[in-house]
Parts: sequence; C-alpha cells; structure tokens
Amino acid sequence: MDINQRLLALREVMQREHLSAFIFPSTDAHQSEYVADHWKSREWISGFNGSAGTAVVTMTSAALWTDSRYFLAAEEQLRGTEYQLMKLKIEGTPTIAEWLGQELREVRSPEVGIDGMVCSTSEVEQLVSDLRHQGGITLRTNFDPLQQVWRDRPALPLNKIEVHPLEYAGEGCTQKIARIRRALREKHADGMLVSALDDIAWTLNLRGTDVHCTPVFIAYLLISTTKVTLFTDKRKLSREVEAYLKENNVETDDYTNIKNGLKSYFEENILLDPDETSYVLMKAVTRKVIRESSPIPAMKIVKNDAEVAGYRRAMVRDGVAMVRFLKWLEESLLSPSSLEAPLSELSIDRKLTALRAEQPLYRDLSFDTIAGYEAHGAIVHYEATSETDAEIEPKGLLLLDSGAQYQDGTTDITRTIALGPVTDEQRHVYTLVLKGHIALARAVFPNRTKGTQLDVLARQFLWREGLNYLHGTGHGVGSYLSVHEGPQQIRMEWKPQPLVANMTITNEPGIYLAGRFGVRIENTMIVVPADTSKFFSVDDEAERGSYLQLEPLTLCPIDTTPIVPGMLTDDERKWLNDYHALVYERLAPLLSNEERAWLRGKTSEL
Amino acid sequence: MDINQRLLALREVMQREHLSAFIFPSTDAHQSEYVADHWKSREWISGFNGSAGTAVVTMTSAALWTDSRYFLAAEEQLRGTEYQLMKLKIEGTPTIAEWLGQELREVRSPEVGIDGMVCSTSEVEQLVSDLRHQGGITLRTNFDPLQQVWRDRPALPLNKIEVHPLEYAGEGCTQKIARIRRALREKHADGMLVSALDDIAWTLNLRGTDVHCTPVFIAYLLISTTKVTLFTDKRKLSREVEAYLKENNVETDDYTNIKNGLKSYFEENILLDPDETSYVLMKAVTRKVIRESSPIPAMKIVKNDAEVAGYRRAMVRDGVAMVRFLKWLEESLLSPSSLEAPLSELSIDRKLTALRAEQPLYRDLSFDTIAGYEAHGAIVHYEATSETDAEIEPKGLLLLDSGAQYQDGTTDITRTIALGPVTDEQRHVYTLVLKGHIALARAVFPNRTKGTQLDVLARQFLWREGLNYLHGTGHGVGSYLSVHEGPQQIRMEWKPQPLVANMTITNEPGIYLAGRFGVRIENTMIVVPADTSKFFSVDDEAERGSYLQLEPLTLCPIDTTPIVPGMLTDDERKWLNDYHALVYERLAPLLSNEERAWLRGKTSEL
Repeated sequence: MDINQRLLALREVMQREHLSAFIFPSTDAHQSEYVADHWKSREWISGFNGSAGTAVVTMTSAALWTDSRYFLAAEEQLRGTEYQLMKLKIEGTPTIAEWLGQELREVRSPEVGIDGMVCSTSEVEQLVSDLRHQGGITLRTNFDPLQQVWRDRPALPLNKIEVHPLEYAGEGCTQKIARIRRALREKHADGMLVSALDDIAWTLNLRGTDVHCTPVFIAYLLISTTKVTLFTDKRKLSREVEAYLKENNVETDDYTNIKNGLKSYFEENILLDPDETSYVLMKAVTRKVIRESSPIPAMKIVKNDAEVAGYRRAMVRDGVAMVRFLKWLEESLLSPSSLEAPLSELSIDRKLTALRAEQPLYRDLSFDTIAGYEAHGAIVHYEATSETDAEIEPKGLLLLDSGAQYQDGTTDITRTIALGPVTDEQRHVYTLVLKGHIALARAVFPNRTKGTQLDVLARQFLWREGLNYLHGTGHGVGSYLSVHEGPQQIRMEWKPQPLVANMTITNEPGIYLAGRFGVRIENTMIVVPADTSKFFSVDDEAERGSYLQLEPLTLCPIDTTPIVPGMLTDDERKWLNDYHALVYERLAPLLSNEERAWLRGKTSEL
Repeated sequence: MDINQRLLALREVMQREHLSAFIFPSTDAHQSEYVADHWKSREWISGFNGSAGTAVVTMTSAALWTDSRYFLAAEEQLRGTEYQLMKLKIEGTPTIAEWLGQELREVRSPEVGIDGMVCSTSEVEQLVSDLRHQGGITLRTNFDPLQQVWRDRPALPLNKIEVHPLEYAGEGCTQKIARIRRALREKHADGMLVSALDDIAWTLNLRGTDVHCTPVFIAYLLISTTKVTLFTDKRKLSREVEAYLKENNVETDDYTNIKNGLKSYFEENILLDPDETSYVLMKAVTRKVIRESSPIPAMKIVKNDAEVAGYRRAMVRDGVAMVRFLKWLEESLLSPSSLEAPLSELSIDRKLTALRAEQPLYRDLSFDTIAGYEAHGAIVHYEATSETDAEIEPKGLLLLDSGAQYQDGTTDITRTIALGPVTDEQRHVYTLVLKGHIALARAVFPNRTKGTQLDVLARQFLWREGLNYLHGTGHGVGSYLSVHEGPQQIRMEWKPQPLVANMTITNEPGIYLAGRFGVRIENTMIVVPADTSKFFSVDDEAERGSYLQLEPLTLCPIDTTPIVPGMLTDDERKWLNDYHALVYERLAPLLSNEERAWLRGKTSEL
C-alpha cells in the first residue's frame, strides 16, 4: 500500500465511525521520543519518518506538522502525497486546531479522533480546549483506526530484558525506590504510575532492546507505599531477571493488565504526571489523582560517581573509534583507488558504526547517524537513504552527528569535517559556530543557573551576523539510556530546570544554509564545580555562592583546518589547544603508533 | 513617637481587633513602586525607608523583608528596634507565611491582617493560600489599623494635574483609548479598570506631582465601550484640564467614588488585572471579571517617534549637566580651598541636582540620587543622610546613580568615578563590570528575544571570578513617567516580555564588596534594529528574521582612569571609543570652550 492507498483505507474507517478527522502524533503509550515499530502510526500513514511530527487527516485533506530540524527531510518525504507540510514555529503556520477549524468549517458537529492511549493527558486536554474554541469541534479518544487498516503492523517487541549491573548503575534499585517514595511523600502522594520507559529502566536498573537505539523495554511500573509492580510481557523475563526482581521485591504482572492494576490500586491517592501519563490511563484511575511532575527525572539526571566514571570510560572508547574513523576517512579521500566502493554518506556511516562496534561494551548506536555531505549537511536531522546517498569528494564539509550506546555510557558527538578545499564562506561560518561552542564551554555560572540563561553564549557570534539555528543548544544525555534526556536543556525557550553538578548536557551550536552546507560542533559535557580563582578574595554574603562550569566528556579532535585563525581570540585559541591536549592525553594510550602520530598532528597547537 | 511606641500603639489596636499579626507591604492602592506619603505605612511602622520591603508585626515580634539592594541600608535603619531583618532570596530566609506559621504556632485560630486596599489581588490570594498551609491561619483584609494610631498621617496630595503636550506624548488620548478598546475586544472584554498611576497618566496624556520623583497623580480610570471616567479629587483639576478632559470625552468622578463606579458599571464584563487591582476593588465588582493582564503596559513601553526624539533631546541636556558636574567635581577635588564647605555625598548631590535644574524642561529628579563614596558604594540603594554623609577625598571610587524628569524624557545614569588613586582591586573589578556593560551594549539578538536570555552577557566576566550582583541588569524607563517601567527587564529570573524595537532598557551591571566599595556603570538604552552586515548574504528561510541591538541614549563619558587596559579586547576598546566619540559629538555644541576642552580629554581614544 502506498500512502494514498493508506489514506483511502483510513478514510473508509473514519466514515464508518463518523470521524471528520484523525490526528496521529509521533509518540507511543509511554510518551517516548523514539518509539517501537508497532507505534509508528504517524510514519505509516504519512511516510514521514522523522522523530517528531504530527499527521492530521480529514476526509479531503492531510497535513503534517514538524519542526525546523525536519523541514527539508519532510518536504522530500511528503512529495507526491497529498500531505501539506506545516512548519512549526514559522510565522503563519496554523496550529492543528486552527487548521481543523478551517478545514472542517462546513462540517456539521464535527468530531475528531486521536488515540488517547498514545497521547499524554496534557496534550489531549489542551487539544480538547483548542478544538472547542474552533466552533465546538469535539474529540474522541478511545479508538485507533489503524487496528483495522494497518495489516502487517509489527507486534509489540518481545525482546529479553537484562539486568544493568550495579557497577555501571552505581545505586541499587531498592535504594532508588526508597528515594522515590521519599519524594512522593513530600508531594503528599502514596504512590505513582511510571509510564516513561527510561524512568522504569533507570529505577529498576534493567535495560532492554525494544526501542531503536534506546536500551529500554515496554512496560509500566506501579509504585505504592508497600508494593512495586512491573507490568510487562512475561515472555521478556529471563530466569535471571525474574530472580533479580524477586530479590528486590518487585512483583510482575502482564503489560495489558495495567488498567486493572490501576483499578485495584489500594492507596488513598496516586501521583500521575499529566505530561507522561496517557489520557486513557489517567481516566482509568479510581483513586484521587495528584497531578504533579514525576519525581524520577530530577533524580535520574544527576549522575552518581559510577555513572560519571562510566561516561568517562565510554568516551575514551568512543573517541578511539572516532579517531580511527577520521584517519580512515582522510586516507580514503587521498587514495580512493584503495576502496572497494566509492565513499558515500552511507558507506562512511557503515564504517564508523563498524569501528564503534569493535569497542568493548558497545551495544548499539544511540541514534541514527547523520552524515550530511555539503548541501545535505543543511538538513538538520538528515538520514541518508539509498535514494539520497551522496558520493563524497575530497572537498567541502561533511557534517557527522553520531553516538553509541555502551553499557557504561551513552555518547553523542558532532564534528564538521573539511574533506579538502572549503570556501571562504564555509570557513567563516565554521569559525562562528566554533566560537559559540567555545564560549559555552568556557562559561562559569552560579549553581542552579537555567540553560535558557546560557544559551546566548553559543549564539552571540551568529546573531551578530544575522544567523541563527532553530534547534536547542544542548540536551541531557542518559547513562546507557536515552540520548535525549531531560528536563535540563540549553535553548532559547524558557526551561526552568536548574543546572547542578553531575548533570550531562550537550553543547551543539550549528548553522544550516539550505542547499549549500551545514556546520555543527557538538561535545557532550558534564556540569562540574568551577574554580573561580578570583583576582581578589571576596567574602561578602551577597557575592558568595558556588559556581559551575561545563567539562567536555567527548574526546575527539575538532577539525582546525576550516578555522579562520584571525577570528579567534587568545582565550578561544587557548581553550581549543587545552581541549586538544586533553584529547591526546586520554586517547593516545589506546592507539597504535601510527594512529597516535596522526592524532598528534590533529591536536597540535593552533 | 519612636518605632517602639508606634509598635505599642499598633498592638493595642491589634488586640482589640483580635488580630495576631499585621502585614504592611510597601505599595499603595495603585501598586506603585514609589508611593505618596499618605501610604508609607511600612516606613512609618518600621522606620525602614527603602522602596521595597514588607513589615510584619505580631504581638511579640516584628520582622522586615527586603531584597539585596537594601540589606545594608535596612540593617542600619532597623538598628535599635525590635525588627529582625529578613533577607529575600538568601538561603534560609523564611517566607512571611512560614515565619508567621512559626511565630503564631501557640496561638489558637490565629487571624492576620493586611489592608486589602493597598495590596493586589494576586498577592492577597497567594497570601491566603500560603497562610492556610501554615496550620490554617486566616487573613482579614478590610481593615487599616494605622487609621487609629498614625496621628499626623499625611493626607492624600491635592497637587494640580497638568496636560502632557502632544508634541512630547506623540499620540492623542483619543487614539490611545481607541487602541486600548481594540485590545480589550481581543481579550473579549467590554471595559477595564486602570489602577496603575503611570498607565492612567500615559493613557490620558496627563501628568501630576503626587508621587516623589514620578510625575503621576492619584486616580483611577474606568473604561467601558462607550465611556471613560477619571476618578480623582476634583480639586486637582484646573480649568484647562477640565476643558481638555471634556474635549476628549473623559468624564470625571470623585476618587473616593471608585467602588460605586465599579458597582454601577453597566457592561457584561470587565477586565481587571489581578497584579494591578487591589483586592478590595476586585471584590467590589458585580459584573463578570476577566482576569487578564492589562493591555496598557505593552503599548506604553513601545515608544513612538515623538517620545524617542524627546529622550534624545533630554539625554543631551542631562549629559551637559553631568559633564558640568564631573568637571566641577574634578576641579573641586584639586582645589578644595575654593569650596565653601568640604565635599560630601550630600553636597555633591545638591550640586548635581542644581546643574540639572538649570536645564530647560527640567521638572524633578527621577529618583533620589545615590551618591555612595567608597564603602557606601557597596550599599546598592544607598541614600546619604546627614548622619551617614561621608566626606569625599581625592582617592577611591564614588558610585553615582541619578536621573531626572524632563518634560520630554526621563533619564537614569550611573557612573563610578575615580576621585584619585584607586586600588588594583578597584581597577580590576571596575574593568570586569565595564566589560559586562559593553558585552550587553554590543549584543545583537533576534527580534522578540527575552531579557533573561541576554542577562548573562553582562554577568559573564564577573561569574568567571565568582562574583555576582543580585539586582537586575536592566529595566525600562518611562517617557516623563516612572523611572522603572516594565514589564521588560533584563535579569536572571525569567521575564517573558519580548524585547522589540523602540523599548527603553537600562544596562547596569555592578558589583558590591561590602565595607569596601561598589561599582556600577549604567546607560539607558533604546532597542533599535540591528544592521547584521553579514559576511555573506543568507536567504534561507530558517535564518531570515530581523535582529535588534541596544543603542545608548545616555550621553556622558565613562571614567577611563580605573580601567585595566590589558583586560579589554580590541572590540571592547572600539565600543568605548565609539561611544565617547558620540558623547563628544552630541554634547560639544552645547558646552563652553572650557567645558568642551575638558570633555575632549575625557572622551579621547583609549
């Protein structure tokens, strides 16, 4: 079935059900960013495979909303379908409700559908309110039309769950549950439902392989004052995991029993995070609901010593793989005849993945590699396919954003690499982006500063020239968990989560010139106490306070060949030289003589 | 009566009324920052005269909450009274409700009082909720105990209202009211009550002299779809103003009739801003209340061409007065024998005020001058009194924060001046503050950036050395109105008001080393379109967009003698030289030959 046939089949069901439109968000029953194939309804109905987007289908029209990362990719993927691309945060783009109000203006008492099982309570309630304002459109939430039309829909995965060893987790599951219960008591709650898959994996020190690039497993977790119950398909549990759960007093029940589990929950009240809990489950609860944010993310994002040590080890191995890759790439560009097939975006992706996979404790990629050569580099979340795969020549810029899941840490790194001669414009823009990266990397800030306060540091040099990037500057990175972990972020929008020591955060300014090239330079960083070596000691009460800074975890040379040296200040040059000295010092012991010599050249003082 | 006698008298009334505590905020019935003497209840009961602070009195204890600007001043002023100083935003400081919960823990069914006429709806409702959480303390809002104990309480002022000429206002009152009505319709409101005195003055193009340093008058304004009524004491209205109001279809009623006015308001609904409307008036309304923010501030803070031209003229005159003052100060320090009395904080304040008063269109100061010599400079809102007045010697730093009300514009400027030799520490800190000032002054940012996003630019160099200032970096400045105008601000806390062209904003980083000295460098700036002269033209949709920057309105040399030249980058030096060239160019034509020569020296290239 092609997209138009799928739309035809959907509209037949919609007609039978008297639905004027149906909304397909990109989430699953757990509000995951990356979802199991079973839940890729939006991709199935629209053909757009980006990680974020919402498809809306009426009887006569269809539209897809996505953000700036995916504008170019979505345009390509929607070509030839009846979908209209709706660019989020661009002036003039209607909201979904506004668009439906317009499209359904001739329909009498229109009803719109959304699957309330894969949509959070907050989103559904907002949608109900927004649609009511559009001439009283109503919303139905108890129905998934694709059950009738998506014939070869993948089943929910049955992959085995494994125990995440304490040496990497750093804190036992029993201790974590005790901490969660204390936090619940502070919110006057007797228990909670955990829907977020990474929060479940973190709490229980379990990992899985149900979701692409993310070591989680499909489940719910119900915590009360005396009981902890894991709702998951029991076929996923090995003997070892069963014994581990028993040992930690975690009961199990089947995944499909979660509604019953909520109905028979015996305490006075239950905390449900409306941003995390699906609308259908929120409505299934019979006890008093305490609508508050889950206490788990705030615990999970502050890494313990074992986790930090794990990141540091994983980053060394990831750096070794990156260095071997970069050396191979450089040599391959110089003697293309030595290669079996010409260099292309896909072939270098395969090579890089193979080099990472050689490393101990490697488990998976942490997201699909973005290898964008020249104009493809301007597509923020470009993913090369056999149709788009571009041959790589010894000139211009390659934007390479990649990462891996190692059992002791998750990595996320972007390098933009000059493959040969680059234009003056490329050098100029590359240096602006690097200056922003360094400004954030050098920042010192008071404990509990918000990411929004720091964001301008990475953008200031771009803004001065009328350039900007519409994605965030930084996001948290999980500890052998999701590569995007929150709620800490560094971005233009207000994010109230304060930064404290031992949080991870990426530093990834970029710039994208459509049709020409893209530049992004990203290190994963960790928040550490700053040594504010003052010129003079200050002991005034108002001035006292602890300060933080960002320390790079990522260890990989930053290409110096596209830098315009005169655009860097002495301080910026010093930061880059210091970083390169660190990269060399940490990676050299694991490299061959030849590799070491290569790295020595790449990290030599500017 | 001294403070302790006042407390005694208050407690007698509290006992009669069965009140366990009484709360005295620093606002008036109009939520003004600066209030008429009649409403200075908090100052009368506590002796603390800062612009922000809340006094709370129980039968056995008393406490005063204020912010970091006033910590040192409050400590001095509360000495010898039973008041305990509560430092806002300092760890460990209880909230008022928490403190009352603790102080009244032995009292049965405690009731606390606050005058609901001088307290906003939002504040009262928050307080009701906070006190309820402290073991069920209740709040009484219909009673002002000082009516019985404050014998010589000043009456409400009866100063004459005057028309603010159209050549300065730039937009007629009828046009403004039409714009307000359009904004109200967008909020589905039929009318509104305006309580904020500067919003009333702005809307009607009227000014007064009821409040210290702020050209407003005591009134309420009630706007409906067909009627506009000004509630004010009719003795304040001259023939001219009466005619002007009539001409603009503004009816008048007595100030004390506002409750009746609200009761007889005839439309379906009324917009009341809960942050601006006193609790008592909110409760007096019988129609449906639309609780939304007032549409007026968003209009008032975007200055029209006449207002901008007015600022520019006023800043030239203010700059001339400042230059004459600085030259006089320098010469007086060199030949003190020429003076009648020794130089002191108070005497230089008088001299500066006299020089400003010589300027055309001068009407008043825009706030009490802060002239803090050496250690007094570390008291953020220091106001010299005859007791504290420090003699000024030809050494160290003088922090001078001052401004004036001219009929065509309000000014606000801070200079920190080396009076002779300064220490290495002073030079170092001065240069850090200047670097922050310049970083913000040089910033280019997208249209609608929030002040919170830019704040770090001014703080980054201080933070690196473990220093910070706890006040905001910038606030709006009125057009012959309040020197503090909002809601636009540049500060660490989140302020959602976006910056757009033609808003005023100050740029005033500082640092305060208690017991030693303070540094602050402040220019009033205006938001203007930025020329993002790009290295290469970029026409990608995602990159397009208009950019803004801050242009200094203030014209006065920044002292270069305390600068450590090696700490400035070339870009920073260039900014300072360009600014000084501008100051010279604009002020020179109004100066005598001797003054011009002096200014030439002070603005020579660094």
